[in-house]
Amino acid sequence: MSFKLIEKHRSFGGEQYKYRHYSKTLQCDMTFSIFLPSNKEEKKIPLIWWLSGLTCTDDNFSQKSGFQRLAEKYQVAVMIPDTSPRGEHIANDAGYDLGQGAGFYVNATQEPWSKHYKMYSYIVDELTQIAISLVPHFSGEESIMGHSMGGHGALVIGLKNTERFKAISAFSPILSPSQVPWGIKAFSAYLGENQAIWKPWDASELIKEIGTPPILITQGTQDEFYSEQLDETLFLKIAQENNKIVNYKKMEGYDHSYFFITTFLEEHFAFHMKYLR
Amino acid sequence: MSFKLIEKHRSFGGEQYKYRHYSKTLQCDMTFSIFLPSNKEEKKIPLIWWLSGLTCTDDNFSQKSGFQRLAEKYQVAVMIPDTSPRGEHIANDAGYDLGQGAGFYVNATQEPWSKHYKMYSYIVDELTQIAISLVPHFSGEESIMGHSMGGHGALVIGLKNTERFKAISAFSPILSPSQVPWGIKAFSAYLGENQAIWKPWDASELIKEIGTPPILITQGTQDEFYSEQLDETLFLKIAQENNKIVNYKKMEGYDHSYFFITTFLEEHFAFHMKYLR
Repeated sequence: MSFKLIEKHRSFGGEQYKYRHYSKTLQCDMTFSIFLPSNKEEKKIPLIWWLSGLTCTDDNFSQKSGFQRLAEKYQVAVMIPDTSPRGEHIANDAGYDLGQGAGFYVNATQEPWSKHYKMYSYIVDELTQIAISLVPHFSGEESIMGHSMGGHGALVIGLKNTERFKAISAFSPILSPSQVPWGIKAFSAYLGENQAIWKPWDASELIKEIGTPPILITQGTQDEFYSEQLDETLFLKIAQENNKIVNYKKMEGYDHSYFFITTFLEEHFAFHMKYLR
Repeated sequence: MSFKLIEKHRSFGGEQYKYRHYSKTLQCDMTFSIFLPSNKEEKKIPLIWWLSGLTCTDDNFSQKSGFQRLAEKYQVAVMIPDTSPRGEHIANDAGYDLGQGAGFYVNATQEPWSKHYKMYSYIVDELTQIAISLVPHFSGEESIMGHSMGGHGALVIGLKNTERFKAISAFSPILSPSQVPWGIKAFSAYLGENQAIWKPWDASELIKEIGTPPILITQGTQDEFYSEQLDETLFLKIAQENNKIVNYKKMEGYDHSYFFITTFLEEHFAFHMKYLR
């Protein structure tokens, strides 16, 4: 396990790091970003994962959300993976919603994707080991949040690892990927046409299972992708049928951008911290 | 006076706008961004100007600083110009520190720059008229802040218009442009080799004049440009000789990036609001 520091910036008293490493899981060089709070009192530090949306790298959240103010306020570490394997030798697609920048947090089984597109295992196993090694005084407590494709990722990873993640939250997530164009395109390519195989990667299926952690979802009403890609009806229906409590909030006038995310990020951090202490 | 809305995003209850317009002063199409707070109580709204640094457009501050949280909290409008004239027909330079993205907030007098590079007049006259027309319930009170080259711009514009700007603040500003490589290169090109002509564009000269508004400056000690470009010695010496009070703060471990700006932006907004109410 080796990784190289490529950027370091003091921010709100803590430190924002960016690293490069070779991923055995993805078989390519990857970058990730991690924020460590100042921890002046040398207390135990929990860890929040942030999963980004289509076209993003680990830079979008670290540079545009201002989350460092909140992570320092609450004394929590934040780990930000990239959204797919990267490199000229890695399979790609001309569309923004498949291939590099669009890993969908699954383990691909289909050619030409199956060699490198293992973002689920990369995050849940390999990057987790790295994160643990980088957080001093790690409390062992984790939660997960994300945006859009990364909201889908946060829900899927959180719901598949309910012992591990104490809370899940998402901004404008893809809640029913098997039903919407983005998800159908990605799952067809990465997992194949047999839709039965898609179920373990779909939050609207996983929410049926026992042991769901607390979930907060925030969605803007002016989100340009809302009606086609991000509809909540099926997810909330299945959650209700299974007696799961989901705090789903629609915010008037907000779109899909970081202007929306930054506005409600403090509420999400406060929600996570209730379960990380 | 016409301008076209090209982006609008709700943010922290207010609205972040981006416009395009044809500038008569610069003789080219320009973009600018402006934030309007929600103003639910329909009170009088002051205006803060933000001037950006080398290579920036009006997007950097609007997308990376998170200032909207503060502008909404304090119910103040924020106007963000671009940093130079733009376009294929506009003179440019291969370096990042001259030409497009590097207007230095002066009125150029030398070829090939003098036709378009009039950022001082563009901001102080043309864009001011537009800003006034865009801020409902404008209180008439203004202040100005900026970063690096934009910190120089904020000081120069603020000190040349002391009746107008109630406060000036800057992050890692070029305080003595006539003495440092960035300023010497830009002033030589835009204003010519006669350094006497540079004085009305140099904060270390302008600080001698009467009527200085309150000034706050924040500088990171790990700023990679600090020793070569941003030295404060001359400026503070001349300010002291002229009995001017400058609150100059050095912050341990911070660099030149937006990670630094975001950390101390709340303090700057609070400083401005003391003089805008």
